Amino acid sequence: MSPVVGVIGGGQLARMMIPAAVHLGIDIRVLAENEGESASLAVSHLGDYRNAADVLRFCEGVDVVTFDHEHVPQDVLGALLDAGVTVRPAPDALLYAQDKLLMRERLAALGIPIPDWARVSTAEQLGAFLDEHGGAAVLKTPRGGYDGKGVRVVRSAADGDDWFAAGGDLLVEELVDFRRELAQVVARRPSGELALWPVVESVQRDGVCAEVIAPAPASAGKLADVAADIATTIAEGLGVTGVLAVELFETTDERLVVNELAMRPHNTGHWSIDGAETSQFENHLRGVLDLPLGCTHARAPWSVMVNVLGGAVDDLEAQRTVVLAAEPDVKIHLYGKSVKAGRKVGHVTAYGDDLDDVLARARHAAALFTDG
Amino acid sequence: MSPVVGVIGGGQLARMMIPAAVHLGIDIRVLAENEGESASLAVSHLGDYRNAADVLRFCEGVDVVTFDHEHVPQDVLGALLDAGVTVRPAPDALLYAQDKLLMRERLAALGIPIPDWARVSTAEQLGAFLDEHGGAAVLKTPRGGYDGKGVRVVRSAADGDDWFAAGGDLLVEELVDFRRELAQVVARRPSGELALWPVVESVQRDGVCAEVIAPAPASAGKLADVAADIATTIAEGLGVTGVLAVELFETTDERLVVNELAMRPHNTGHWSIDGAETSQFENHLRGVLDLPLGCTHARAPWSVMVNVLGGAVDDLEAQRTVVLAAEPDVKIHLYGKSVKAGRKVGHVTAYGDDLDDVLARARHAAALFTDG
Repeated sequence: MSPVVGVIGGGQLARMMIPAAVHLGIDIRVLAENEGESASLAVSHLGDYRNAADVLRFCEGVDVVTFDHEHVPQDVLGALLDAGVTVRPAPDALLYAQDKLLMRERLAALGIPIPDWARVSTAEQLGAFLDEHGGAAVLKTPRGGYDGKGVRVVRSAADGDDWFAAGGDLLVEELVDFRRELAQVVARRPSGELALWPVVESVQRDGVCAEVIAPAPASAGKLADVAADIATTIAEGLGVTGVLAVELFETTDERLVVNELAMRPHNTGHWSIDGAETSQFENHLRGVLDLPLGCTHARAPWSVMVNVLGGAVDDLEAQRTVVLAAEPDVKIHLYGKSVKAGRKVGHVTAYGDDLDDVLARARHAAALFTDG
Repeated sequence: MSPVVGVIGGGQLARMMIPAAVHLGIDIRVLAENEGESASLAVSHLGDYRNAADVLRFCEGVDVVTFDHEHVPQDVLGALLDAGVTVRPAPDALLYAQDKLLMRERLAALGIPIPDWARVSTAEQLGAFLDEHGGAAVLKTPRGGYDGKGVRVVRSAADGDDWFAAGGDLLVEELVDFRRELAQVVARRPSGELALWPVVESVQRDGVCAEVIAPAPASAGKLADVAADIATTIAEGLGVTGVLAVELFETTDERLVVNELAMRPHNTGHWSIDGAETSQFENHLRGVLDLPLGCTHARAPWSVMVNVLGGAVDDLEAQRTVVLAAEPDVKIHLYGKSVKAGRKVGHVTAYGDDLDDVLARARHAAALFTDG
């Protein structure tokens, strides 16, 4: 019998686990909230991931449960553990991807380089932090933020009033003076085996990942070693299983500090489907099943992934023909989602020997999808 | 709306179309005969591919129908055309992959090099052919043969008596004195665009494909050109859409003659999943949807695919852990099928710069799966 992996959440990350599961001979099932979500081909149950009964029903006959997103509440995860379900990453690891305040506390305790930060619950505390940090900072809700949501730059003590009014503590961080953003993606098995992909550069626009270059230019040597050390320390320190993505700032004074964590396949690892020996989706499945991990080497000197965001083009089907004809060497990935402005509806990946050429092909294909 | 491709047949070829469909953003549905077949993840209907009503029901809402096998009867295909269903490859092309006598007649008319052959319906006719060809020949049932079934070497006029008794004409062919077997896989769109993968060498054991080397050693230049010309002439001459595999004998006097045709993704093209820019499964889907075809170049100097046949190992799940640990650079593909002696239950692919090393790794992984 094939092992059965259950994925909570029906988005594009669950969708892109399907090809890896099919090739490895693994049965995959998805719990989605609604019909027609991105991973609908593998949906076995519709239900609410915040409802323990829904999730427990989904888990019957599932060998291991993993995630398309990190929003499953800890009380639901606890109910799964109580029922004997194998959950990977484990809830006590996932916690640090769910709550940015806990993440900052834990990374500080592990000695990981992070921005200056504070837990604040009043405008006065926020004002004090601003006074100590040049009058500007980044304010974050500890939970539920993604793709620029739950994050804002603040310049006055009153800039967090609406979030304070909603209750709960907030995370405030120094505005890091960074040269660029990097990401180190790693897979880990329960038995401890680790596999790290090359560190990549990610370019964000409006708080959303726009493109990823693998490997990050001029990263060979010390930069790659430091990124790998940081990700290894976090993966081992938190007991992560499956894929962990560590988003990093490279500061103008050439330090790396950790920005965010994700404990699932991540946008900064999508290039690996076409650009690496083993994709992040395959190694995520291998990791959560405690199977030996695959080689994470790049297959080409350069790979570039560019997100396809919803834009002027409504009919992605018709446009696919245009893109395939215009860029026969670019690999396209559409997520089966309807187009809304700025929504991630797919990505494209190009690879080759010449970075400028690879960048140009990937950007051209993505622009054709977004702008026509 | 994503286009919907319907695949008749639930075997591993349909299964391996799923990853390509998922990435391209194409909806795929499968008509299988039974639950739990290899492509079960995408099965939307169970039914009999020989029953026009079953197949017509499956085709509702499907934009184009294609095949996991070539056994759908022409009267069923005709009913689909009458109902306005788009069928690719078209029935009047598929015919030549269904009936080896018609195939031989058609290839002869196209001027394609083929073995000496004859249509025979009596032991006397078979005896006459044997007399003219050194006393040995290959006898084939025109329909339904595969993987060594419906094919036998004959040395006496009586050797075909059981098949003659079953009725219908048989195909007899000279025993070709061949050095090795090659295959040229090509994809074609209705609009005429063609994409050819490198010609490969296939090694058969007991009439079943055992391993494939891409490209075929010492094939660059004239051999590759002739193979490409043959496949192009056939694809265009028969009006093939989707993938066509042309199995070839390379004779001891350095000619290429056509052995068999298949109008679907083929075992000799499985290496392309991991070894080519675009896999045969992706270009099959692109071809039948009349989308521009993807680049078919090899991604590594050498790729080797070895089939995993049912053998001493019953528990492929447990053995997968052994194989992944032993050969971390080999890509494994399991078909979700139960183990029976000699049954194709998966394949493995290795690639790299050194053919001996690539062969050794792929063979080792496959042997671990088959023999333990």
